[in-house]
Amino acid sequence: MTPRLYAALIHHPVLNRKGEVVASAVTNLDLHDIARAGRTYGVRRFYVVTPLEDQRQIARRIIAHWTEGAGGRLNPMRKEALARVRLAEHLADAAADVESDAGAAPLTVATSAAPQRRTIGFSKLRRRVHDGGPVLLIFGTAWGLADEALDDCDALLAPIAGNDGYNHLSVRSAAAIIFDRILSPEDDSGN
Amino acid sequence: MTPRLYAALIHHPVLNRKGEVVASAVTNLDLHDIARAGRTYGVRRFYVVTPLEDQRQIARRIIAHWTEGAGGRLNPMRKEALARVRLAEHLADAAADVESDAGAAPLTVATSAAPQRRTIGFSKLRRRVHDGGPVLLIFGTAWGLADEALDDCDALLAPIAGNDGYNHLSVRSAAAIIFDRILSPEDDSGN
Repeated sequence: MTPRLYAALIHHPVLNRKGEVVASAVTNLDLHDIARAGRTYGVRRFYVVTPLEDQRQIARRIIAHWTEGAGGRLNPMRKEALARVRLAEHLADAAADVESDAGAAPLTVATSAAPQRRTIGFSKLRRRVHDGGPVLLIFGTAWGLADEALDDCDALLAPIAGNDGYNHLSVRSAAAIIFDRILSPEDDSGN
Repeated sequence: MTPRLYAALIHHPVLNRKGEVVASAVTNLDLHDIARAGRTYGVRRFYVVTPLEDQRQIARRIIAHWTEGAGGRLNPMRKEALARVRLAEHLADAAADVESDAGAAPLTVATSAAPQRRTIGFSKLRRRVHDGGPVLLIFGTAWGLADEALDDCDALLAPIAGNDGYNHLSVRSAAAIIFDRILSPEDDSGN
């Protein structure tokens, strides 16, 4: 079946450096990098999730610049990537939109750099996505998803393991690696 | 053997949107994202390569802020990542530094989004790196490495294949995916 993977980038509730629950600011480059990686791998929609109306307004302007404005005329590839971005107030709104697009409620899978709780492995999630999903992958900004966000999800993806215990990827890098592991064509690693 | 992978980010000669050869500006986030991904996967040194002294000066200031200044005190993990960044005027200088660190001249492997020439596949490069390398992976900024930069390299890595021919990853995302494919622990994809 066609993989039905969706992604959401959460700006609240996330942690700051001190471990406090905050709302983070929307970042132009997060939108671009994750939208481009998502488009490359066939992620169907990419939700920018924030309860703050002014932050959604900023995201709306960025997207419009590339999908309707001058940006898209200069760079049609960027337009194609950003056309898959959607805004949502809460994760539940993103999940509801996935359900209306996919015709079934998604499995919501949180991502975290910290090994914790019971996790689902990459191979298993890859199989589930290729069996038709739908799956909504959830990324946290700032210092990562707060516990209350993790609690709202059905499952937690295994952390990306580096080579000696250091794991401080940007959310942009983590999203790219996870899309590659779950969606890359089987024969892609070549000769 | 311990993998000996190095990376270089080239700011000249690269292409602009029109396919002209230019020097691009050093970008704060490129340094951070690629340094963090490199540190996570055990890339030994990450070279920021530009012939423009003022651009090297900018990069030097960014690195010093995190390795010697206030940034590193606030965020020791970031300090650890940026401590592996080196500046170089030309690719040959980076290769010479790799040779002095590794005790052997590296295989220089260019990366490109466009399928062209003869390429080396990910599995083969992974084996070579795990056999001890050394290998210097070369990334282009802007619209990618100019032909004259590709000509200087020993080999060209296969492009990252997406799912329907669209492949417009940021260099930050591409570097993260390539490090993961070449250096991730074998058993990492989990249950």
